[in-house]
Amino acid sequence: MPPVSPLAPAAFPAVPAVAGVRLASGAAGARYRDRDDLLLVGLAPGTTVAGALTRSRMSSAPVDWCRVALAGGAARALVVNAGNANAFTGAAGGRAVRRTAEAAARLVGARPGEVFVASTGVIGEPLDEARIVARLPELSAALAPTGWEAAARAIMTTDTFPKGATRTATIAGSPVTLAGIAKGSGMIAPNMATMLAFVFTDATLPAGILQRLVTAAVNRSFNCITIDGDTSTSDTVLAFASGAGAAHAAVSHAGDRRLKGFAEALTALMVDLARQVVCDGEGAEKLMTVTVSGAASPNAARRIGLAIAGSPLVKTAIAGADANWGRIVMAVGKSGEKADRDRLAIRIGGLPVAENGVRYPGLDEAALAPHMAGREIRIEVDVGVGRGRATVWGCDLTHGYIDINAAYRS
Amino acid sequence: MPPVSPLAPAAFPAVPAVAGVRLASGAAGARYRDRDDLLLVGLAPGTTVAGALTRSRMSSAPVDWCRVALAGGAARALVVNAGNANAFTGAAGGRAVRRTAEAAARLVGARPGEVFVASTGVIGEPLDEARIVARLPELSAALAPTGWEAAARAIMTTDTFPKGATRTATIAGSPVTLAGIAKGSGMIAPNMATMLAFVFTDATLPAGILQRLVTAAVNRSFNCITIDGDTSTSDTVLAFASGAGAAHAAVSHAGDRRLKGFAEALTALMVDLARQVVCDGEGAEKLMTVTVSGAASPNAARRIGLAIAGSPLVKTAIAGADANWGRIVMAVGKSGEKADRDRLAIRIGGLPVAENGVRYPGLDEAALAPHMAGREIRIEVDVGVGRGRATVWGCDLTHGYIDINAAYRS
Repeated sequence: MPPVSPLAPAAFPAVPAVAGVRLASGAAGARYRDRDDLLLVGLAPGTTVAGALTRSRMSSAPVDWCRVALAGGAARALVVNAGNANAFTGAAGGRAVRRTAEAAARLVGARPGEVFVASTGVIGEPLDEARIVARLPELSAALAPTGWEAAARAIMTTDTFPKGATRTATIAGSPVTLAGIAKGSGMIAPNMATMLAFVFTDATLPAGILQRLVTAAVNRSFNCITIDGDTSTSDTVLAFASGAGAAHAAVSHAGDRRLKGFAEALTALMVDLARQVVCDGEGAEKLMTVTVSGAASPNAARRIGLAIAGSPLVKTAIAGADANWGRIVMAVGKSGEKADRDRLAIRIGGLPVAENGVRYPGLDEAALAPHMAGREIRIEVDVGVGRGRATVWGCDLTHGYIDINAAYRS
Repeated sequence: MPPVSPLAPAAFPAVPAVAGVRLASGAAGARYRDRDDLLLVGLAPGTTVAGALTRSRMSSAPVDWCRVALAGGAARALVVNAGNANAFTGAAGGRAVRRTAEAAARLVGARPGEVFVASTGVIGEPLDEARIVARLPELSAALAPTGWEAAARAIMTTDTFPKGATRTATIAGSPVTLAGIAKGSGMIAPNMATMLAFVFTDATLPAGILQRLVTAAVNRSFNCITIDGDTSTSDTVLAFASGAGAAHAAVSHAGDRRLKGFAEALTALMVDLARQVVCDGEGAEKLMTVTVSGAASPNAARRIGLAIAGSPLVKTAIAGADANWGRIVMAVGKSGEKADRDRLAIRIGGLPVAENGVRYPGLDEAALAPHMAGREIRIEVDVGVGRGRATVWGCDLTHGYIDINAAYRS
């Protein structure tokens, strides 16, 4: 097992209970030994749900299930297993999800369509759902308001640390709590963040409003990260609003000004989780933050940023602590987005390296060396054509990535 | 310096003289020591030219020059230097190209617009063209009908072996010769092949006809390879027809049946060179040939193939000799092209591994092991929606890629 990422936070955050949300994790033994690989989350009656699912044409059976269930907008339970993605498993895969959902539904007294299922791990292996179903009764009996770190650990695959985050906000003056967990750590690219993330809040939000807030937050977070450019068949972000917190005035639309603080907290929480996913990118030793300005639109800026952060040549240069800004120029060029070569400006670690389409006249690469030797590399690029702006996150490409992925199954 | 790629051909091919084409290579010392890094090709009066240039928005000064010169359709010389790409070098870069072209034009008695220039190497460093211009007179004096291997060596950067190919064909019964050289070996992705390749023939072909033949051949060859998905600022494919061979009946359009054999030879020669580029992909230890069928169109098939051959997770699995076909499913899904998950079929080394959207019932991974242990991995995918078909080539992703690129400049 690879060591914990050098970019891991010092400790799992202190995530509080979220009213209406209870957790239990355990071991189904579908693939891993000596660790938890199964998570059950029980949700209070009235919980609403929204989400974002992979755009892969080869979506997994659980993703197909969630796509249908999301249309209902109501959730009473979430079941997540790690080790087997239940993807490319045909009709048997669909049956496995349905039986899992039915079993959980019986335990929590809900309809199967109110149970959400997510799976992560190897693609193409039949999933023996009986192992999961057999463990659900004891997990159901053990549901408790805490246990976030254990939950985050139970959904890990090649992750080297559990990922959690929490935020608070107010809606119309009443406090609400947000908590989330996520897992990475390869097959990570936008469209969408190619990972699993689950966010919970005790706010009272109609599913339609929650969906609009989630879509906006995902575009600023999970759709702004890249590790290897691969897109999983199983990407799933789900957000659940239990409505079990302190009563607050009802909101009637996503643009309601009283939701501004909540929307910001939701985005900040998702950015926090997304950055943790990058920091646990397979083999990652450095975090790259790329801010693009001067683009034709925010989306153009994001695509340019992802072209930079996703370029194998930029990523290997970062790994080698080489401020090889020529490769950044290359990546801007390959993005296909509008950019003015002769106005392009690049800063690394705050220092100018290129301006007006040429090397910065006073460029002193030695001055960049301390920044390049650090764990967090900041790249700023202005492409000189408009006002579009975005920040994206990526990591370096190291021997560790090869070690992990040339031996994943064997 | 990394060792010669294990995928290199046993020897440089025996490339014959091409009437109307003379070569000389030498050392300008712009970057490398103790090796040639400059190539001059002299072309007979009446030579026509066609080409394909990078689609990067950050195209190099030589690419900008060639774009203009190609419109003229006439060529008398080609100058190529290795070590410095003269990209992102602003107005000074443009001047350096012009001065190089002017110097070569004087030597061969042509207009500067009939001189083609290509540069490869580091981006963003000013190019001192005086070093190049100073060597041109002696190269001009040394022009000779042979020297293909030396020419191919002079244009190498991180390439570990020189790349050449030759074919013959007939046009209306008269024999014609084709010869070509190329260099890779990172920053290789389609749009277009992200490399330099120069093809020469003694056929008599109007520039417009040559351009149509070149465009078609590039789409089947250099646009069907991927190494790291990065797109160079300097990609250049140029084809020159000297008209100095045995006289043949004039052809009046690219679809002329008498050109069929020539078109096939041109495509085969470019495929040969493109495959050599892949075989010298940075760190490559295995060649991957991906044939996609059943796609909505040939272009869709090509894009699916490139998604597979370009996926870091597929590439690392190949490096690890792991027939991890789940990652092939993932890559088909991320391509965004139409594909029927429940009809998808995959063969590796000729053996079925997936059929009708699930693992092949009789799958015996042990039977795949000998194929996966070899140097050439064959992947066939049918996506079950149409009749589009394409073959693409890629390589594995190994520690060697990291070694080379984390230390390219330093």
